[in-house]
Amino acid sequence: MRRADLTTDDRTSLLALCGKLADAAGTEALRHFRKPELTTDNKLHTGFDPVTQADRAAETAMRDILQTARPEDAVLGEEHGMKSGTSGLQWVLDPIDGTRAYISGTTTWGVLIAVCDLDGPFLGVIDQPYTGERFIGGLGLAQLRSPHGTTPLQTRAARDLHDAILFSTFPEIGTEDEHAAFQRVAQASKLTRYGMDCYAYALLAAGHIDLVIEAGLNSYDICAPIAVIQAAGGVVTDWQGRPAHAGGQVLAAANAKLHAAALALLQRTA
Amino acid sequence: MRRADLTTDDRTSLLALCGKLADAAGTEALRHFRKPELTTDNKLHTGFDPVTQADRAAETAMRDILQTARPEDAVLGEEHGMKSGTSGLQWVLDPIDGTRAYISGTTTWGVLIAVCDLDGPFLGVIDQPYTGERFIGGLGLAQLRSPHGTTPLQTRAARDLHDAILFSTFPEIGTEDEHAAFQRVAQASKLTRYGMDCYAYALLAAGHIDLVIEAGLNSYDICAPIAVIQAAGGVVTDWQGRPAHAGGQVLAAANAKLHAAALALLQRTA
Repeated sequence: MRRADLTTDDRTSLLALCGKLADAAGTEALRHFRKPELTTDNKLHTGFDPVTQADRAAETAMRDILQTARPEDAVLGEEHGMKSGTSGLQWVLDPIDGTRAYISGTTTWGVLIAVCDLDGPFLGVIDQPYTGERFIGGLGLAQLRSPHGTTPLQTRAARDLHDAILFSTFPEIGTEDEHAAFQRVAQASKLTRYGMDCYAYALLAAGHIDLVIEAGLNSYDICAPIAVIQAAGGVVTDWQGRPAHAGGQVLAAANAKLHAAALALLQRTA
Repeated sequence: MRRADLTTDDRTSLLALCGKLADAAGTEALRHFRKPELTTDNKLHTGFDPVTQADRAAETAMRDILQTARPEDAVLGEEHGMKSGTSGLQWVLDPIDGTRAYISGTTTWGVLIAVCDLDGPFLGVIDQPYTGERFIGGLGLAQLRSPHGTTPLQTRAARDLHDAILFSTFPEIGTEDEHAAFQRVAQASKLTRYGMDCYAYALLAAGHIDLVIEAGLNSYDICAPIAVIQAAGGVVTDWQGRPAHAGGQVLAAANAKLHAAALALLQRTA
């Protein structure tokens, strides 16, 4: 099955299922958020890549729902790996994107849910359970639902790079070459900010910032943002202009003009 | 008048007035937050230090209330400067701390309100109007009020620096020497994160992170955080261990042990 084969009923039920997954994951994530008893394990022998009982419980809650609702679909999740499927559709889940943010108490982490076919993600959710903000994109929908109301998602109009706001999560970005490439775009931009995790992609989809550039991402970090941003009018590729849903280097832009300008600087060798 | 001279009625009325100011500033700030018609002016000839109509309107709203309620108090605000007073008390206001965050749509900016006597701030509010979180500290109170409920603010218990979470807003920190000093602490910490503006101080007061280190602050950036963090059990000084309410270099720590450990690294010359 591909996205073009989906009936109206299929679409409605996929959207409803996304909401159900986000609700379930958010409940598990909030159960431990900002609680003193939260314990953190380190996935790395050197360095610090935290995972908590909340990450694992939130992904399990989503997988349990999918196993009942759509057992024929494949599932890829950060914490519990790959389950193959037969339908042609794959769910890509990051129960808590931004676990470092989560253990620090910031509200920039999110639950990421994407539905993909062979061409990549076509439906995505970026959900911030503490603020109650749910960014949904795909299947004709591009919407933010929050305690402040429901508003359409629409990326910003084209502007020059020197008037653009650029976000990335870690100032060190990636390798030395990746850092240098990022810095070329940062120095050409009006404002560069850090530390927002998946929330940066949500802000781009909602029309508040212009660019997000990151490296070293996993597929589950970027599939949901791709669907949400594309539905809102933006462009997401890797640093060579190719599809980015496998992860690695990511360039997300509010529009094609800024995407081209940033891509040219990322690719220029020193 | 000094804090020791305040009657119970004075204390109650100062706390109520803080809430009234925060409400008024928050209303003005939210009126323009994430709105396409928001326009941004640049305060600098070189570089980018944004100010918006929201900053100005939010400060004016607070000054109008103070002018009626306590005309004898001094007022210092980021946007409208200094007004002298005769009571011995001074209000220090930053209507939108983190204007770069504000114009980017993130929820890490805040309204900062402090009440000071000659010894510095003794009552403070860090208010995030979009998430509805109000962090209050001083006069015996240390409290977070939010849509998720009201909880006491209490900084984290002492732990080793290598188990600490450190925040700062800008990775470049300040001068080269300041950056090098910051990096000594960052490299000794478990996790360093950026981009949170005044929200980092709120997270410290609430017991989620251990250290915030910044340089180049103004008085209005740090007076409210000092009051909130001290009320929650933390320690705030400059990088020489002296009072920090005049601005400049700031070291905020969850407890005296971590403060001493970070201070030693900040002061060690290379």
